[in-house]
Amino acid sequence: MTIGILGGGQLGRMIALAGIPLGLSFRFLDPAPDAPAAAVGELIVGDFNHAPTLRRFANGLDAVTFEFENVPVAALERLAALGLEVYPNANSLRTAQDRLLEKQLFERVGLRVPAYAPVDSQHELDATISTIGLPAVLKTRRMGYDGKGQLVLRRKTDIHSAVATLAPTAARGNSPAALILEQFITFEREVSLIAVAGKDGSRAFYPLTENVHREGILRTSRAPAAGVSNLVRTRAQAAVGKIIDTLGYIGTLAVEFFVHDGQLLANEMAPRVHNSGHWTIDAAVTSQFENHLRAVLGWPLGDTSLRSPCVMHNLIGDAPPLDKMLGVEGAHVHLYGKASRPGRKVGHVTCLHAGPPRAPDTTQAAARAIDRLILRSQA
Amino acid sequence: MTIGILGGGQLGRMIALAGIPLGLSFRFLDPAPDAPAAAVGELIVGDFNHAPTLRRFANGLDAVTFEFENVPVAALERLAALGLEVYPNANSLRTAQDRLLEKQLFERVGLRVPAYAPVDSQHELDATISTIGLPAVLKTRRMGYDGKGQLVLRRKTDIHSAVATLAPTAARGNSPAALILEQFITFEREVSLIAVAGKDGSRAFYPLTENVHREGILRTSRAPAAGVSNLVRTRAQAAVGKIIDTLGYIGTLAVEFFVHDGQLLANEMAPRVHNSGHWTIDAAVTSQFENHLRAVLGWPLGDTSLRSPCVMHNLIGDAPPLDKMLGVEGAHVHLYGKASRPGRKVGHVTCLHAGPPRAPDTTQAAARAIDRLILRSQA
Repeated sequence: MTIGILGGGQLGRMIALAGIPLGLSFRFLDPAPDAPAAAVGELIVGDFNHAPTLRRFANGLDAVTFEFENVPVAALERLAALGLEVYPNANSLRTAQDRLLEKQLFERVGLRVPAYAPVDSQHELDATISTIGLPAVLKTRRMGYDGKGQLVLRRKTDIHSAVATLAPTAARGNSPAALILEQFITFEREVSLIAVAGKDGSRAFYPLTENVHREGILRTSRAPAAGVSNLVRTRAQAAVGKIIDTLGYIGTLAVEFFVHDGQLLANEMAPRVHNSGHWTIDAAVTSQFENHLRAVLGWPLGDTSLRSPCVMHNLIGDAPPLDKMLGVEGAHVHLYGKASRPGRKVGHVTCLHAGPPRAPDTTQAAARAIDRLILRSQA
Repeated sequence: MTIGILGGGQLGRMIALAGIPLGLSFRFLDPAPDAPAAAVGELIVGDFNHAPTLRRFANGLDAVTFEFENVPVAALERLAALGLEVYPNANSLRTAQDRLLEKQLFERVGLRVPAYAPVDSQHELDATISTIGLPAVLKTRRMGYDGKGQLVLRRKTDIHSAVATLAPTAARGNSPAALILEQFITFEREVSLIAVAGKDGSRAFYPLTENVHREGILRTSRAPAAGVSNLVRTRAQAAVGKIIDTLGYIGTLAVEFFVHDGQLLANEMAPRVHNSGHWTIDAAVTSQFENHLRAVLGWPLGDTSLRSPCVMHNLIGDAPPLDKMLGVEGAHVHLYGKASRPGRKVGHVTCLHAGPPRAPDTTQAAARAIDRLILRSQA
């Protein structure tokens, strides 16, 4: 069977690395000729909006999914119109691409969210600030990722040019000033819940992951997350289950939360495998990548239990020397085959216990050693 | 970096699946255009003995290894003469390809072996039987694998045509009747020791694996192996360390033993990653495939500890339905992308504990469930 993936980045690469052992073949569509997934399948270089390219991509595929949430919804609709099974569906992608629709869905399924309001002009922004107050975060409704397309407004002077600053990004979302203002949340920690929804209605949830961002980019994830009660976790799972029901969602779905006073506030969702779930390759019984494929293909979902606690560090901009990283016992290195560039995710390292299972846990020592290598490489 | 691998079978495919996350690229040379490794690298279809093909294969490689022990030693020598680093070295391959040289090396490093003698004619066979006795096993010195190229001699009537029967296989080894007669060992169990030898003299050993063969083909491996004392294991490691020293061996090396009266008798070695180490993908801290690459590239070896006990079942001839196998929790399925054919290894399944680590171990239940699926598919 050949699976088509829209987007050929590291997420596509890792989906294929999980799927090749299941006997699957992969075809990717990506505008970049050096897309990381080219190492593990056929790469068609082209535009997601170009109908003949989509037809060429579609030819002979058994199913289609995507690894990048900014692919055009129209591409999914065109592929579905060609008779292909496309998961997650177009409506799930449309909702996840728009922070306003996303927040409205979160509220509908009973998740708490920070106060928010849509903002379409500088005039509306001024008015909205007066109800939501400062600090606040102004975000483009669409096309944001890794902290791009957002501004924190702390003082009145930050407000004046905010709409103009974000207008170019907002315009890429095809709606000149489609913005959203959100209350700035002072949180104790950020966590994410990664769910998998099968075709037969089956559900699976990975243990909550605790995430640390810097400059809008995920730096470190830890599983399991600390400081969230079983009750809060169970409620979050139930709400995410309702999102899945509402959207008719199939595949892996990530929802990010702020933890504030022990309660979860939903921040955003990603209709795909997620960076905060990369640890599942090395430390869960079944990875998020394999489970995404199982879901999309209608196969039974795999067990999502944690095999051992772990810490994942992202490699941002540049990677420390590989032999140094491999010298850290229990460090599992994943490079994406990407050239170095500031702010770019070029790999990740999952740190686990090494040595016999009953020996004292070495996870934290490995995580500290990798962290030191990262700091040194960026000094 | 691009690594060249002679042979494009499932072992090459799994080496690449371990190496792509380390940022490596792969090129394979194999006579078969449908070689399983084509999914994970560039495949050059051609003959190992063809010098222009070897030069094309060699162009731009950073290192060379092999995944099939019947590649011609001359191919390794030619590649080394082109200035490439080739590991394991040609002498290691030459020794492992010849059951006589292999047995002599085992004895030299202090390993016990079954009684044996080289046999070059029917006349010599008759004479040798009188010292070694029956039952005995007559094997070709070269080109045997998966039980091919050997005959068990139980009765006097088995002896008469034995040399003639094996002559065609022996001839593929370029020596018309190069055979070896070995004492038939009634063993309690078979185990294998997988070692990794780094360029800097570092050594690592995986836990002993217990293996069950049927019709000369590995069916099931269990790690850790039962019934071998720490002392016996430590001595085996020391002896394998001496093999590594003697050969100047670099890479992953497997040695198979019979267990007889609690003692190990060395049977044969494979100068490569080994089927009885496939479980290391899912159940060791570092897999044999990743460690082979670390060794060949001069990187630090990874921890070889068992993360959890496991059972590996080979899929021989045909695989049970994939969705049925994936429905067994804790079953990790590895298919090689090969067409079904009697006696052919088309995949393997590693069974591990699923569910939280502290829950009752489900490994054996998963292994039994997969075994039932295999039996049903072969009924």
